[in-house]
Amino acid sequence: MPHRLLALGFLLALPAAAEEGMWTYDAFPREAVKKAHGFAPTQEWLDHVRLSSVRLAGGCSASFVSPEGLVMTNHHCIRSCVQDLSSPRNDYLAKGFFAKQAKDELRCPKVEANQLVEMTDVTARLEGVTKGKSGADFNTALKAEMSRIESECATGPELRCDVVTLFNGGRYQLYKYRRYQDVRLVFAPEFSMAAFGGDADNFNFPRYGFDAAFLRVWDASGQPLKTEHSLAWAKDGAKEGDLVFVSGHPGGTERQSTVAELEFQRDVALPYILLNLSEMRGMLREYASGSPERWRTTRSELRAVENGLKALRGRHQALAEPALLADKRRAEATLREQGGVDEALASTASALDGWRPLLAAHRLKEGGDGFNSELFAMARRLVRAAEELPKPNAERLREYTDAQLPGLRQGLLRAAPIPADLERVKLTFGFNKLRETLGADDAFVQTVLGREAPEDLARALVKGTKLFDVKERQRLLDGGAAAIAASKDPMILLARRVDAPSREVRKRYEDTVESVLKKNGEVLARARLAAYGTTGYPDATFTLRLSYGTVQGWREPDGRSVAPLTTFAGAYARHTGKEPFRLPDTWMKAQGKVPGDTPLDVATTNDIIGGNSGSPLVDREGRVVGLIFDGNLPSLGGRFSYVPETHRAVGVHGEGLLLGLERVYGAERLVKELRAQQR
Amino acid sequence: MPHRLLALGFLLALPAAAEEGMWTYDAFPREAVKKAHGFAPTQEWLDHVRLSSVRLAGGCSASFVSPEGLVMTNHHCIRSCVQDLSSPRNDYLAKGFFAKQAKDELRCPKVEANQLVEMTDVTARLEGVTKGKSGADFNTALKAEMSRIESECATGPELRCDVVTLFNGGRYQLYKYRRYQDVRLVFAPEFSMAAFGGDADNFNFPRYGFDAAFLRVWDASGQPLKTEHSLAWAKDGAKEGDLVFVSGHPGGTERQSTVAELEFQRDVALPYILLNLSEMRGMLREYASGSPERWRTTRSELRAVENGLKALRGRHQALAEPALLADKRRAEATLREQGGVDEALASTASALDGWRPLLAAHRLKEGGDGFNSELFAMARRLVRAAEELPKPNAERLREYTDAQLPGLRQGLLRAAPIPADLERVKLTFGFNKLRETLGADDAFVQTVLGREAPEDLARALVKGTKLFDVKERQRLLDGGAAAIAASKDPMILLARRVDAPSREVRKRYEDTVESVLKKNGEVLARARLAAYGTTGYPDATFTLRLSYGTVQGWREPDGRSVAPLTTFAGAYARHTGKEPFRLPDTWMKAQGKVPGDTPLDVATTNDIIGGNSGSPLVDREGRVVGLIFDGNLPSLGGRFSYVPETHRAVGVHGEGLLLGLERVYGAERLVKELRAQQR
Repeated sequence: MPHRLLALGFLLALPAAAEEGMWTYDAFPREAVKKAHGFAPTQEWLDHVRLSSVRLAGGCSASFVSPEGLVMTNHHCIRSCVQDLSSPRNDYLAKGFFAKQAKDELRCPKVEANQLVEMTDVTARLEGVTKGKSGADFNTALKAEMSRIESECATGPELRCDVVTLFNGGRYQLYKYRRYQDVRLVFAPEFSMAAFGGDADNFNFPRYGFDAAFLRVWDASGQPLKTEHSLAWAKDGAKEGDLVFVSGHPGGTERQSTVAELEFQRDVALPYILLNLSEMRGMLREYASGSPERWRTTRSELRAVENGLKALRGRHQALAEPALLADKRRAEATLREQGGVDEALASTASALDGWRPLLAAHRLKEGGDGFNSELFAMARRLVRAAEELPKPNAERLREYTDAQLPGLRQGLLRAAPIPADLERVKLTFGFNKLRETLGADDAFVQTVLGREAPEDLARALVKGTKLFDVKERQRLLDGGAAAIAASKDPMILLARRVDAPSREVRKRYEDTVESVLKKNGEVLARARLAAYGTTGYPDATFTLRLSYGTVQGWREPDGRSVAPLTTFAGAYARHTGKEPFRLPDTWMKAQGKVPGDTPLDVATTNDIIGGNSGSPLVDREGRVVGLIFDGNLPSLGGRFSYVPETHRAVGVHGEGLLLGLERVYGAERLVKELRAQQR
Repeated sequence: MPHRLLALGFLLALPAAAEEGMWTYDAFPREAVKKAHGFAPTQEWLDHVRLSSVRLAGGCSASFVSPEGLVMTNHHCIRSCVQDLSSPRNDYLAKGFFAKQAKDELRCPKVEANQLVEMTDVTARLEGVTKGKSGADFNTALKAEMSRIESECATGPELRCDVVTLFNGGRYQLYKYRRYQDVRLVFAPEFSMAAFGGDADNFNFPRYGFDAAFLRVWDASGQPLKTEHSLAWAKDGAKEGDLVFVSGHPGGTERQSTVAELEFQRDVALPYILLNLSEMRGMLREYASGSPERWRTTRSELRAVENGLKALRGRHQALAEPALLADKRRAEATLREQGGVDEALASTASALDGWRPLLAAHRLKEGGDGFNSELFAMARRLVRAAEELPKPNAERLREYTDAQLPGLRQGLLRAAPIPADLERVKLTFGFNKLRETLGADDAFVQTVLGREAPEDLARALVKGTKLFDVKERQRLLDGGAAAIAASKDPMILLARRVDAPSREVRKRYEDTVESVLKKNGEVLARARLAAYGTTGYPDATFTLRLSYGTVQGWREPDGRSVAPLTTFAGAYARHTGKEPFRLPDTWMKAQGKVPGDTPLDVATTNDIIGGNSGSPLVDREGRVVGLIFDGNLPSLGGRFSYVPETHRAVGVHGEGLLLGLERVYGAERLVKELRAQQR
C-alpha cells in the first residue's frame, strides 16, 4: 500500500493526531497513551472511572463524587430543573440554591441519572434480521429487533437498555444502564455566575464561568444512595501540560459522514435550523425584556436557544471552510479506490437530493418547529401513546417502546409549572413559521389554522387547554384511546387533527432517507473497517466515552496565544457591574477570600463535544481535577473533525471549584463531603 | 469550435432561453424578438418608452403616465414616504391616501426621481488611467477618474451623472439623468391592500396585491411638470400569451460571477446576512406587537426586513441547488479552455479566502450592522462630510463626491420624523451584535461600549442626541469640520470615535477585495467578449433595462400548474378577516362594483429582479398593461441565472388597477387623468 494511502487511511479510521478520539471504554488506546505520556490506565482504573460516570437524560454527563450518591454536573445541565423549582418568591435561578441539610434537597422532576453497568455486542443478531433487506424493510426489521433486544434486557423499571449504533452501523451494542429517578438538587450557583459572560462569552476562552452544580441520587427507601464507585477530589490541581482524561457522553459527531451528507448539512439542514433559531432568539430576547416576570420565565429557554444557535453556527462555519470538505473529499476518493462503495455513496446522495424539498415540512410537522410548545408536545405524546401502546412492542414508534415508557411517563407527569404566556408566543411563532414556509394554501396549514390567525389560534389553545394540570395529563394517559377520543381539549384535538399527515412525512423520512443512509452507513463502515482495521473510535452517539489530552492553551490565527488557565483575579477584573459581566453579590462580598491566582477555568486538548457537558476531568490517579462545561469556538468544528492545534475543551478548574464552594458560597456540608475523600 | 463549446458559450454570454435578458436600450435584440413574436420595437418606440421610464432613488423603478408629470410606481417603493407623512392621527399607511385636488398632494421628502436622458461610452478613458495598475492603485485611479467624469458632466443640480459599470468592467458608460426632487404623493392604497397576504404571500403567486401608488413631479416654478414622454394606458388588458415588455432598473445580478464568488455568497456572505436579518425580524415583530404606536412606527421597517430576508433566502436556496453551481463550474471550465483567465480566477478565489474572516467585521463596523440606527447613520455622514468635502473631488470617498452631494443633503435634511424608541431597540441590537460577533475583548468593541451595557449606551445616545432636529443637522453640515469638532452630541462623538477603525476595514476591503475582484472581472469579461462576442446583456447594475416576455403561468415541481392571472373574485375568496388576509373596508364596501372576473394580478416570463419594482408592463403598442411589483419564489434565483420554465415576474394587471382606482377608491381625478390618454 503506498504511503499516501496509508496516511489517508489513518485520517479515516485512526486518530490523525495524538489526543484525537472519543474512545469506548472497551477499546481505549492504552498503548498509544503510554507511549505519548508514559502512563496507561489499568483495567481497574477504567472500570472505576466508568462506573463513577453518569449520564443525565436530556443530553448531559455527570459523575458520582462521594459514596453518598453525590453527583457533580454543570449548572446548565440542570438549569431547567432550577427554573422549574423557582417561583417569583424563591428565584433559585437568580439567587442560587444550597441545601444546608439533606432534608432540604429538592427533587428535580425532569432529571434522571443513568449509570452504564454492562455492554454486550449484538451486531450478529441484528445483521441476522436485516440481511438482504433495504429501504423501509431494512429499517422496520432493524427497529423491531432493537426493541425486542431492549425489552428482553430491561427486566425492571430500575434498568434501561439501549441498543446503540457504533461505527455508523458497523457494530451494534446493547448498553445496560442502572436508572436513578429520584435525583435532588444540592447546590446551584447563580445563573449569572454559572454563565458569567452570557452568550457573548459562550464558547469563548479565556473564560470565567462557575458552571457547576451538585445533585444527589436518593434510593427507593428514601435514603441517599450508597455508591460503590465515586471519584475522589484531587488535593493538587491540574497544571499546564498535565495529562488529563474526560469521561462522559459526547452527543454526536459526523466524522464518518459522506461528502454528500456534509454538503446537505451545510447547504440545506443547517441554514434552515439556524434561521429558525435566529429569529426565535430575536423574538425571545425582545419578549423577555418586557417585564421581570417575562424574563424569569423565558431566560432558561432563551439561553438554550442562544447556545444552540452559537453551536450550530460554529458547525456551519466549519463546513464552510473549504479545507475541511477538501479533506473529506480526498478521504472519500481514497475509500472509493478500495472498491465496493460507489453504489452506497451514490444512493446516499440521491436520497438526500430527494429529501431536500421536504426537510422543512418534516421539521415543521413532525419535528416540532410548527408547534413550538410544551403543551402541544404533551398533547401529541398523549395522543400517540393512546395509539401506540396497544400495539405489540416491536411495532410501535421507537419512542413508545417499553424501554422508553418510564421516561415518557416522567416527562408527561412532572409537576413543573408551564408558563402560559410564553407558550402563547412560542405557539404563535410556530404557526407563523408553518404558514410562511408551506404557504397559506397548503392543506396541512389549512388543517391547523383554518381561517384563524396564528396569534388568535395560539391564544385560544393556551386558554382552552387543561393540560397545564398534571392530573388531567395523568387521566388522559391512563384512559388511553377512549379518553383521548372523548377529550374536547383543544390542544388534544389539534394534536389528533395533525397526526396522520405528521406521521406520513415521518414515515417518508424514515423509509427514503433514514433507512437508506443507515444501510449505506453500514456498507461504508464495513469498507473502512476492512481497509483500515478496527482500532479507531466510533462517531459519538451519546454513549460513554473516554478521551485523553493535556492542559494546554492555543495560538489564534492572528498569532495571539491563549493561556490554558484563568484565575479568580481575572473574573474580578472582567466584572463591569452590567449583565452579562456582573459578578453576583456573593462573589463581590467574598472578594479576597480566594487567592487571586487560584485557577478558575481551564482549557485542555481533550476531544469532546456537546453532551460532554458535566463530564469530570480526571488526572492519571483518576481524581477530579475539573468539570468540563464547554469547548472553545474552533472545537465546534469537532463535529466533523478534530484539529489538535486549536480545538479545546473548557472546564471549571477543580481547585477553583472547591475553593469557590467553600469561601464564596460557604457550602460547608458539601465541601466537607468532597474533602472527606480528597487525596 | 466543437458544438459543445458553442452551446456553453451561449450559456455564458447569450440568452440560453428565449426571453432571458435584461437588455440595455442601446443593444436590444430586436431581431430575436421579431423572430419569436413577429414584432420588433422601432427606435422611436424604444426612445419613447425609455424617456417615459423613471428611476427612484433608493432602488425602485417607475414611469410617467400622463403629460402632467404623473408617475406610477409600487406602494412598497414609497412606503417609507407614506410612513414619514403619517402620524397617529393621520395614519396614511393604515388608511391609504388620495389627494382630491392638486394642492392636496404631499411632498415625499426622501423621494427623488431620475430620468435617463443620455448614455455615452467612456471605456477608453477609464482604461487609459488604469492601464498597468492593480490592487489599491487600480481602484484609486478608477474611482478618481469616475468622479472626474461625473463632475464634468453634472453641470447643474438638475443633472445626475453616473459612470456605470457594464459587463463587470468590460464596458463603462456615462449615464446622464435629469433629476426631479419635488415629488409629491397623489395616491396610495392601504398598506394592508398593497401587501395583501403580507410576508406569507410575498414572492408567492397566485397573488392578490394592489401594490400601486401614484406620485407627481412638480417643477421648479411650483407647477406639475410637463412631460414630453409618458405612457398611455391600454384600453384592452393583457391576456395569456401576449407579448409584454418591462422597462425598469434591475438592481443587481451575478450571472457572470465566478464559482469562487458564488461559493463565497453561499457559504459566507449570505449566511451572515440572513442570520442577522432573521434575528432582527424576530425582534422587530415582537417589539411591534407591544402597542399600536410601536406597530405604527415599526411596520414599514419590519416589512423591509422581511422582504430582504425572503429575497436573500431565495437567493441562498438557488445557490444551494447543486445543479446551478454545476452549470457555472462547467461554464468556467470552458472559459478556462479559451486560455488567459487562470490567473484572474485564482486571484479572485484567493482574495475571497483572505476576506472570509473579515466579512463580519466589515459589515459591523462600516456596513452599519453594528450601528443599526438612522441617527447614527446621519452622525457618520455629518462627520465624514466634514472630513471629505474639503478634499479635492477625486480624492473623496465615493459617496461624498460632487455628483452625490444633492442626495447626501436631501438625506440629511429631510423633515421626516425619527421614532426614538425604535432607534433605541435597533441600536441595542446592533451593539449586541458587535459584542457577540467580535468578542467582548475586541478593541473596537471596547471603543464603542467601554464598560457600558449595549442597552444602556443605546438609551443614553438616543436620549442625549440632538440629531432628531433638522436644524441641528443643517447647522453641523454647514459648519463643517469646526462644528463637528466642537460638537458634544453623543452620537457625533460616537461616530468620530469609531471612524478611523471603520475606515481602516473599508480600505482593506477596497484594496484587497473590491479592487481585485473588479480587475479580475474585467479580465474575465474581456475574455468572454473575445470568445463569445458582444451580443449579450450585462449583469444588472440598477441601470435602465428592457426585457421582453409573455403573459404566462408555470408548472410546479409537484405537477400543479399555476395560471397567469388572478381576479377580483379570488381576492374576496382569500379574505379571512384576519391580517394579513384581511381586505380593507374600502374593498369590503366595494364588493361587486368591479366584476369578479376582472384580472387583478398577472405573471409574465419577463426576466426581472429587485429594483424592477414599479416598472411599467407595456404591450407592443407601448401602452401600460400592468405594473410590476414582484417576482415569484423561483425567480429569486434569477440573481444567478434565468430559468424560463419557472421564473416569473409578478404585477398588478392594468385593467384591475384602473377599475380598482375608479370603483374601489373613487379616485376620480386620477382615473380621469389616466383615461385621458387611454387608447
